[in-house]
Amino acid sequence: MTVAEPPAGSIDGAVLVIGTGLIGTSVALSLRRAGVDVLLSDVDPECVRTAMAAGAGRPPADDDRPVIVVVAVPPRHAAAVLADASERFPDATLTDVTSVKERIVNGAIATGADPSRLVGGHPMAGREVSGAAGARADLLDDRLWVVTPTPHSGMEHVQRVHRLVITCGAYPVEMGVAEHDAAVALVSHTPQVLASVLAGRLVESDQDQVRIAGQGLRDMTRIAASNVAMWSDILAANAGPVADVLDGVIADLTTTAAALRTSAAGGTLAEDQVRRVLESGVEGQHLIPGKHGAEPAPLREVTVIVADRPGELARLFAAVGDGSVNLEDIRIEHVFGRPSGLVALFVRPDAGERLIAALEAHDFDVRY
Amino acid sequence: MTVAEPPAGSIDGAVLVIGTGLIGTSVALSLRRAGVDVLLSDVDPECVRTAMAAGAGRPPADDDRPVIVVVAVPPRHAAAVLADASERFPDATLTDVTSVKERIVNGAIATGADPSRLVGGHPMAGREVSGAAGARADLLDDRLWVVTPTPHSGMEHVQRVHRLVITCGAYPVEMGVAEHDAAVALVSHTPQVLASVLAGRLVESDQDQVRIAGQGLRDMTRIAASNVAMWSDILAANAGPVADVLDGVIADLTTTAAALRTSAAGGTLAEDQVRRVLESGVEGQHLIPGKHGAEPAPLREVTVIVADRPGELARLFAAVGDGSVNLEDIRIEHVFGRPSGLVALFVRPDAGERLIAALEAHDFDVRY
Repeated sequence: MTVAEPPAGSIDGAVLVIGTGLIGTSVALSLRRAGVDVLLSDVDPECVRTAMAAGAGRPPADDDRPVIVVVAVPPRHAAAVLADASERFPDATLTDVTSVKERIVNGAIATGADPSRLVGGHPMAGREVSGAAGARADLLDDRLWVVTPTPHSGMEHVQRVHRLVITCGAYPVEMGVAEHDAAVALVSHTPQVLASVLAGRLVESDQDQVRIAGQGLRDMTRIAASNVAMWSDILAANAGPVADVLDGVIADLTTTAAALRTSAAGGTLAEDQVRRVLESGVEGQHLIPGKHGAEPAPLREVTVIVADRPGELARLFAAVGDGSVNLEDIRIEHVFGRPSGLVALFVRPDAGERLIAALEAHDFDVRY
Repeated sequence: MTVAEPPAGSIDGAVLVIGTGLIGTSVALSLRRAGVDVLLSDVDPECVRTAMAAGAGRPPADDDRPVIVVVAVPPRHAAAVLADASERFPDATLTDVTSVKERIVNGAIATGADPSRLVGGHPMAGREVSGAAGARADLLDDRLWVVTPTPHSGMEHVQRVHRLVITCGAYPVEMGVAEHDAAVALVSHTPQVLASVLAGRLVESDQDQVRIAGQGLRDMTRIAASNVAMWSDILAANAGPVADVLDGVIADLTTTAAALRTSAAGGTLAEDQVRRVLESGVEGQHLIPGKHGAEPAPLREVTVIVADRPGELARLFAAVGDGSVNLEDIRIEHVFGRPSGLVALFVRPDAGERLIAALEAHDFDVRY
């Protein structure tokens, strides 16, 4: 992974956005915000009209020669649309915003796209937003946008895509095509499958059992509520890499289940195997980058009981502000059957005592 | 699951707490807060001294006759300690606070504990707290505490345990012993194994891949950081029910991985199978109770960009308070490499517009 320096200069011509859904329209709006001439196209003329009405751009004229074409169509159409754009605009840099890369880039080249002008991309624009109505000029601000050149990509085209990303307010990082797909299989697509399968186990279960669920299950299944059609497409398009990661997960779970069966029969070696799985989990969890991509630091958790009425959270965070403490994370837990909430505040260890003092000075009920 | 009415009356004598770790000492402190006479015991005299110094109770005298014995020792010792207490205190109600029930209750009875006086319990006191130093009088306030009578349990002993739970500030719900164990295997122990296995996959992976992780992976692996020794004991003690749930998860994952392999080879039937897993996940996720055990309501998400400096969250929640909006949930996302944070606020749909207006009136950068 290369974190590239912003290339000098701005975008040197018009940008054509093909596909005016959530991401395409948001890309167009953020380019317009930066004063870029944006051309809009979609198989559905109604979608283009909606995007234009939002100020996302104008229809292309016959003599328009975009310098960049951004393909923002569903994964199953992206390769063909890229190949078609390559033919229609023989000088344009070609990119897309699809969340899988190898199948689309290879498919586009196989269908006739010019490999030197093709530089794939994947803006990490949040999983819980969907639908064109959600398009916003600032959707991509401060988002990570993976740029995936191939060995055939010309340097000027890679730089143009970087400029596009930066102009949209996002943050470019470079990865290879296969590296990107293996990465999203590991950190995004497989977690989605695990969340769906775990949540799916609840369907057949006694609902009384589900009612004692705590924050752990809630966290582990939240993304299971995601859009089925979109995820079905994504998983199909990245099927091989996801199946590879799943095979590893299944092997680990099978070993663990077997160890538990042996443990149920009194085996201590089996308990050692269970312990190794847990230890490996602790190690892996610590590898996940903390805030702002920094090395993860151990955080101090301070829990506060907050009354369930408007204004209490404002009072809480005013107290935090009085202590001049910067929060690293917040979690709100809800307790079954009781009108109160537990709020967990996470701060750097050296700020813990200051936070507690500030909270207690405001009569908050602190647990630490 | 029965949600019991609080029984009339208070605790009619002394309570002996055996095991002065986090939960035992917290139970003792909350009973002392309510004026109950608390006797403390532990295999480690130093632990008892620490608990006494914190005001958790006094050492038992030879003529003390506790009406309740609370066994708060690690799972592997709980059955033997319950049986021993049954013999030493032939009139006392016997309970424990262990997170698995069948093996312990059956083990205690097999070792000689009086079945009529034995009523197991499991306070859901939060997974991320550990160590006796964390003991607090309010640790159990507003927590769910599962009470697990057997068919042999005498009604007066069940009622005494309910009184204990309520006196500690917690909220009793009744379940059968096996029902409890199957429930925690499903909603707590299996999610722990999945989180550990998923996080464990990160250890062997290219660390560049891990760096693009988003909130989904963070949520799915957070509990993987839990205490290994404690979870190793819990999983060993509930090995059978956890293995049962894991078998179902493994079967679903295996079907999904096979469908993805077929999908990679162009099969559309296989995509239907993937879609069914995702649909089942959506259905299961909706079954998880919302705030306060209420039916889950669809929430509106409003995302705000918040500058990364002390006081900004206070300013944000002051704005929320100005709108008289009650937040249902909060999530803070961190963006790799950029000094800003995205805060997602979740409110009931009818409060969404009021929230947005309040935020924009305070010049917040709102995405909706």
